[in-house]
Amino acid sequence: MKKNPKIIVIGGGTGTFVVLSGLKKYFNNLTAIVSMADSGGCNKMIRDELGLLPTSDIRQCFVALASGSSETERIMRDLFTYRFTKGNGLTGMTFGNLFMAALSGVLGSQKKAIEKTGQVLRINGKVVPVTLNDVDLVAKYENGEITKGEHYIDEPPSKHNSKLTIVDFWLEPKAKANKDALDEIKKADLIIMGPGDLYTSVLANCLVKGIPQAIKKSKAKLLYVVNLMTKYGQTYDYSAKDHTKEFKKYTGRWPDFVLINSNKIPQQIEKKYWREEKSSPVEDDLDSKNYTVVRKDFLSGIIHKKSKADILKRSLIRHNSQKLAKAIVSLLK
Amino acid sequence: MKKNPKIIVIGGGTGTFVVLSGLKKYFNNLTAIVSMADSGGCNKMIRDELGLLPTSDIRQCFVALASGSSETERIMRDLFTYRFTKGNGLTGMTFGNLFMAALSGVLGSQKKAIEKTGQVLRINGKVVPVTLNDVDLVAKYENGEITKGEHYIDEPPSKHNSKLTIVDFWLEPKAKANKDALDEIKKADLIIMGPGDLYTSVLANCLVKGIPQAIKKSKAKLLYVVNLMTKYGQTYDYSAKDHTKEFKKYTGRWPDFVLINSNKIPQQIEKKYWREEKSSPVEDDLDSKNYTVVRKDFLSGIIHKKSKADILKRSLIRHNSQKLAKAIVSLLK
Repeated sequence: MKKNPKIIVIGGGTGTFVVLSGLKKYFNNLTAIVSMADSGGCNKMIRDELGLLPTSDIRQCFVALASGSSETERIMRDLFTYRFTKGNGLTGMTFGNLFMAALSGVLGSQKKAIEKTGQVLRINGKVVPVTLNDVDLVAKYENGEITKGEHYIDEPPSKHNSKLTIVDFWLEPKAKANKDALDEIKKADLIIMGPGDLYTSVLANCLVKGIPQAIKKSKAKLLYVVNLMTKYGQTYDYSAKDHTKEFKKYTGRWPDFVLINSNKIPQQIEKKYWREEKSSPVEDDLDSKNYTVVRKDFLSGIIHKKSKADILKRSLIRHNSQKLAKAIVSLLK
Repeated sequence: MKKNPKIIVIGGGTGTFVVLSGLKKYFNNLTAIVSMADSGGCNKMIRDELGLLPTSDIRQCFVALASGSSETERIMRDLFTYRFTKGNGLTGMTFGNLFMAALSGVLGSQKKAIEKTGQVLRINGKVVPVTLNDVDLVAKYENGEITKGEHYIDEPPSKHNSKLTIVDFWLEPKAKANKDALDEIKKADLIIMGPGDLYTSVLANCLVKGIPQAIKKSKAKLLYVVNLMTKYGQTYDYSAKDHTKEFKKYTGRWPDFVLINSNKIPQQIEKKYWREEKSSPVEDDLDSKNYTVVRKDFLSGIIHKKSKADILKRSLIRHNSQKLAKAIVSLLK
């Protein structure tokens, strides 16, 4: 592959943060294409009260790519992840989202505000919204039940049977791809998707008209990172093969590489996950018929504690950004 | 006077903004010492809900002194004055105050946050809180009535007779001066106070223990800029001499120079002020017994429109920052 390949990471959420954080030590021209259908937590306020597109996923990518080379840049990066813990109407809001909301007001355009934010944080790369349309995710389950809204799919109400499989998945209203996202995919040498919530973070991007078409058409290698754990409500008993099949269904293309963790998840954590979230390690049943399987230890030793102010759950195990980045870099050789 | 004199502006509010904006074209080492007793608008939320000291006056000084030399710095400066117009609990909040609140959370200290904010905005000079104590202004009127809280003194409730003179004025609880403020006053060559709301913005600083003592002790020249208009509720029928007498009462020292506008305020604006705010041009009855009077055209031609999102009233006439700065610079020669 080229000496300075163009790498696109398509996703949103913590998985994308991890991939970008690792890769930015090797590349300074990364592009993150980010899902815009978030509706939980801070995003709800951004959408419903400020009338803007949700920016939590964008914010995370900015933080991952922030250079942090000067003290001011480090302060700005720390501010971007700061969540207010006090104040009526402020509690739970992240500063980064408020920053982009205020800048949208100053510049009169959220698109411009997102671009300028990258400049203020001096990010190494680009963060591009997959669409500029105001959309909601809709999931249809195997029993015919339909749920609208990203955060209801992500954390279904208790009456919902979260073992049900999602059989169909779309956006309402239909969304058109952001032209900048299509341009980036066109120029890509490598497209990375995953890890992350399969439907609400990863495949949500492929519901935007033009995106799967562009991925299919692209000459870029396509790389998929399988999640460590299943997710109750989305991928309850999905094996690695199930994940990859769904990936193929929505992107329209088999990945060239599938990266999967081969290290054992500590039993204590496995039990905790099962007890608290009905979540279990994704079974590795991959074969090499349609793609190259890369089995490696991708496990992070760090346990991410839940933040009090954080109204969304945070996972306890993660992919290790350095291990992932190393494996990706070695594939590029 | 010295070639590069140390100039301290003591105040808060729009008057201080105007003085700093003009002077920063001549000097890059200005210090603003800022009143910390604000309790109206955005400050109420900052104080009551976030448990922080009020920062609206500080914010205005930062904006005045922001270098704005790069695009990022200009964006940050514009953001600092941005006021949210939507969102429950956000409407009316200025981004600059939220910035300092978030940074206080990140750094675990509001004092440090204020210092770092100056760094992020790359201000030419320093902005120093007059005290780091959480205080409220209290005013006693000639009829014995007592009012607590800066914004109740500034905009008294309708039952209050706003023609009454303030006969006493103090802080509750008592406040100690910020050491940095005392250090700055000690090193000053010129101290400028006014224009601005006589009690709530200018003299409020002199209620902090140590400040009038430091001003009195200082070898700096002391300069007082008289307001253009009287203020219903604070200085209803105060002449220029009345203003200056009060200045002497609270600073403990006559000013060396008193600057007063000699240009006539347009009749239309005068009428509007009287009609809407029971405010009239300050009568110039100054004599040169205790100070040098500098009479010049200091009037700005700009009319500052009221912003919809702004919950506090804004004045329609202002001092012209350039005219003021020129007069001050010529006094230094």
